[in-house]
Amino acid sequence: MRTSQYLLSTLKETPADAEVISHQLMLRAGMIRKVAAGLYNWLPSGLRVLRKVEQVVREEMNRAGAVEVLMPVVQPADLWEESGRWEDYGPELCRLKDRHERPFVLGPTHEEVITALVRNEVASYKQLPLNLYQIQTKFRDEIRPRFGVMRGREFTMKDAYSFHLSQECLEQTYQTMFDAYCRIFERLGLDYRPVIADTGSIGGSASHEFHVLADSGEDDIAFSDGSDYAANVEMAEAVSTTERPEASEALTEFDTPNAKTIADLAEQFGIKAENSIKTLIVKAAEDSEYELVALLVRGDHELNEIKAEKLTAVATPLQFASDEEIKAAVGALPGSLGPVKLPLPVFADRAVAAMADFVAGANVDGKHYKGINWGRDLAEPEVADLRNVQAGDPSPCGQGQLDIKRGIEVGHIFQLGDKYSQAMNAGVLGETGKHQIMTMGCYGIGVSRIVAAAIEQNHDDRGIIWPDALAPFQVVIIPMNMHKSHRVKEVADKLYADLQAAGIDVLFDDRKERPGVMFNDMELVGIPHTIIIGERGLDKQVVEYKNRRDGEKHEVAIDGAVAHIQSALS
Amino acid sequence: MRTSQYLLSTLKETPADAEVISHQLMLRAGMIRKVAAGLYNWLPSGLRVLRKVEQVVREEMNRAGAVEVLMPVVQPADLWEESGRWEDYGPELCRLKDRHERPFVLGPTHEEVITALVRNEVASYKQLPLNLYQIQTKFRDEIRPRFGVMRGREFTMKDAYSFHLSQECLEQTYQTMFDAYCRIFERLGLDYRPVIADTGSIGGSASHEFHVLADSGEDDIAFSDGSDYAANVEMAEAVSTTERPEASEALTEFDTPNAKTIADLAEQFGIKAENSIKTLIVKAAEDSEYELVALLVRGDHELNEIKAEKLTAVATPLQFASDEEIKAAVGALPGSLGPVKLPLPVFADRAVAAMADFVAGANVDGKHYKGINWGRDLAEPEVADLRNVQAGDPSPCGQGQLDIKRGIEVGHIFQLGDKYSQAMNAGVLGETGKHQIMTMGCYGIGVSRIVAAAIEQNHDDRGIIWPDALAPFQVVIIPMNMHKSHRVKEVADKLYADLQAAGIDVLFDDRKERPGVMFNDMELVGIPHTIIIGERGLDKQVVEYKNRRDGEKHEVAIDGAVAHIQSALS
Repeated sequence: MRTSQYLLSTLKETPADAEVISHQLMLRAGMIRKVAAGLYNWLPSGLRVLRKVEQVVREEMNRAGAVEVLMPVVQPADLWEESGRWEDYGPELCRLKDRHERPFVLGPTHEEVITALVRNEVASYKQLPLNLYQIQTKFRDEIRPRFGVMRGREFTMKDAYSFHLSQECLEQTYQTMFDAYCRIFERLGLDYRPVIADTGSIGGSASHEFHVLADSGEDDIAFSDGSDYAANVEMAEAVSTTERPEASEALTEFDTPNAKTIADLAEQFGIKAENSIKTLIVKAAEDSEYELVALLVRGDHELNEIKAEKLTAVATPLQFASDEEIKAAVGALPGSLGPVKLPLPVFADRAVAAMADFVAGANVDGKHYKGINWGRDLAEPEVADLRNVQAGDPSPCGQGQLDIKRGIEVGHIFQLGDKYSQAMNAGVLGETGKHQIMTMGCYGIGVSRIVAAAIEQNHDDRGIIWPDALAPFQVVIIPMNMHKSHRVKEVADKLYADLQAAGIDVLFDDRKERPGVMFNDMELVGIPHTIIIGERGLDKQVVEYKNRRDGEKHEVAIDGAVAHIQSALS
Repeated sequence: MRTSQYLLSTLKETPADAEVISHQLMLRAGMIRKVAAGLYNWLPSGLRVLRKVEQVVREEMNRAGAVEVLMPVVQPADLWEESGRWEDYGPELCRLKDRHERPFVLGPTHEEVITALVRNEVASYKQLPLNLYQIQTKFRDEIRPRFGVMRGREFTMKDAYSFHLSQECLEQTYQTMFDAYCRIFERLGLDYRPVIADTGSIGGSASHEFHVLADSGEDDIAFSDGSDYAANVEMAEAVSTTERPEASEALTEFDTPNAKTIADLAEQFGIKAENSIKTLIVKAAEDSEYELVALLVRGDHELNEIKAEKLTAVATPLQFASDEEIKAAVGALPGSLGPVKLPLPVFADRAVAAMADFVAGANVDGKHYKGINWGRDLAEPEVADLRNVQAGDPSPCGQGQLDIKRGIEVGHIFQLGDKYSQAMNAGVLGETGKHQIMTMGCYGIGVSRIVAAAIEQNHDDRGIIWPDALAPFQVVIIPMNMHKSHRVKEVADKLYADLQAAGIDVLFDDRKERPGVMFNDMELVGIPHTIIIGERGLDKQVVEYKNRRDGEKHEVAIDGAVAHIQSALS
């Protein structure tokens, strides 16, 4: 491609409304342009990267035995009524009517359409397992689209759906997809981690997210420094390895008129956060004899709401009690609550159960107890894993300590079970001749999000630094003053033709611009390899090679330039 | 690909609601499945063909210097308000609201989005010309979707838009696109014709449609048998080459109480259709002193409404007068109308102007004249080209005669002018430093429609016969009783691996099915080349090759099978 025929569209200034670096660089490097909130044009440089991601995803899905199909963006509402999601899905689901006033949706995902398709096309167990995928446009009406294509409304996704008759068969395909995802992210040159994920309201038995590690990520991920263990912080088990010490202090009430928080206690009374506890009051499950339930976590720990929600005694979704409800039930307000003489069921986090001589509210406004000890001052608690893990915690795998990093979720695989196949009666004739409902897996990759995530991980203050596999062009030729030097033009034209003939993606910057403008543009766009052609070098029959990532520069014989690029790419 | 891991989904029966052969065969061959009216799933075999079309289109667009982008399906209404199409576009435009009640459309085409993009990104004449294209999902809410993907609601289109500062520059790119389209349809192996098309209400100076010739086509196309000339019948000029004969009969009124049509006159009075004329009364243009205008065509000719609409004296769009209006203005009803003593402006088709001694209504109910002659019985008429051409007419290019065939429109290129750039103020700084509005071209290809059109042109009573360039698989291996013969399985496995290694798209029918079922399925799916492996052949170290198109069969040495397929494909 010649720059003169291309739409380079680089920007000097960083657009004011772009918060994260990938959004800024995608705008500045001429990869995307906003059409409306969460809707983008992909300019040529952006689309070239998007297509490279698509192609790697497609190749690895095919290699893993998945078969490509294409389902429509616009889906009839009746399928969504069958699955129950017409009712359940919130305003992220864009609903519309056609000219005959029939209801449709813009697909945010395709479980309904694929389940209906397989229900109609697959009659016998002999045709299973079957794994179908598509790479296609999705629409989710995000309430606050942001970060460019990282959280857009219209985006490209690879979604695969597998169909099985047994959990064992599902697990095999799940593992095949897990491996394929690892190959995809490796081939794309990304620093990623598969992490154990919450299966959420869909249920199902297993789920992994694939995260690209980057400080701007929206998710916290816990890693072991001694094994492969990684989990979304939501999911990582907090293991307590300390034994409870012996009681050594007496239970003592003291006045705390101005201490409502753990920080207040520390500041006013010198009490360490790890010696105090937080008492959080939530609604009880509907069938409970109590209205409210108390959850205890150590003063320096955070409640993990997903873990709390898994207690059968608490309401789902988790709801915190109001001050009025707490005052009515306990007689005191938040800030002075504690487990001693608390007229509610109490669940203590593992770390709380291992405490002795600790501090908590006295359930009288303005008063706390210190020297509280389990078994002596109050009954032994029900114990559960209720908190978020922290850096330095022992890894639940038993090896090493946890570290916490931020990640961008770019893939999610899921043992879906029979949620959709049951609701939509999708079954086949089993080996014994009986109709059997299929069990399903689903496997997503955020194709357009990968482009942004890759930039979060690969940039410097001059612009993007593409991994070779993702670069819009692998090489750029920058001729110096070509429009004045016939010699430079001749060598540049020939090298351009030779690189193309070698099957290399090459951009030829043939604009009438100063060399500085070209260098800045190409570093911003992030092309990994540069060949600079100037009069001075030609006297010695050489051109200059420059590597975008490490800045390394050296001279290369004109005749060896193609081979040099080939070896740099391999 | 192994059939056992694939979703073949062939059907024995022809689905009742599929009217045209391509729709029937796409369903039967497992290429598409209906999700709702005009919305389809592309199954694996269909998608493979669709992607091959896309790839040829992409390669030729790139070769022609167009640059690929990707615009969103969902477009904000404000851009459509700017262009005026928010008002002008009918119910085919699907309008929707997002969660914040902001109006959007599903893009039926992308002139607005691309014009806004180029307006923002291109500042100087130095960046022109620029030709941007995308291959993308479009939605048009057809009132009656039919013929499968031939006239669906959601479909894949290649749309390109070029931007220029002069008509000359536009014409150059237009010619480049014309040539690229010819290469695309040639590479796809289709019998196609570029035809001169109507520029319609958009105006502009030139337009060509590209038609795939097929009896099921919705358009009539006129071809010269002596040159390259081809035009949509709407557009083909009707040339009259006959001189008007001398008058030889007297003007005579005669009673025709039961003759209201040309056919009635022929049947009751033996008057040949080519000696009579039809008098059609339409509304006059708004600024005319008349309310109505008469249009005359020969009895055996058809009025061409698009040509009639181009007369400045008639209303746009063309409106036929009601019986009441005609009776009030003329004193007679349709069936007895004619140009003699007609109190309206009269426009005669060229062929009518060349008639002598002809028959027409007398503008008195139940009476006609015969022996009418121009200049003697009534003034010489205003002459215009008003009729559709017919087979046998002389070609307007001056060489040969016209033939008429039916075609399926698969491409349309257009010199658009400044309709959008003017309305949306899309300009650049010109060479003299002045802001100049750009002029535009647009170039569409119906990617998904091509798949159906190719089938209309390439099938027999056993199924589809794909051209090599479009086939979902180039070759299929059919092993006979592989599940019983180890030898057959061994040769089949090896040949499958060897063909894949040679980069050939091969399907391996490894199902436990009878050979007849496999043959029927593969002929239905239309795979061009078949290798049959059986015990009997293996005794002689041969396999059987069969060609889908000509049915030719012969033996090939096992070792020569890959080379044989390679030479068949080249």
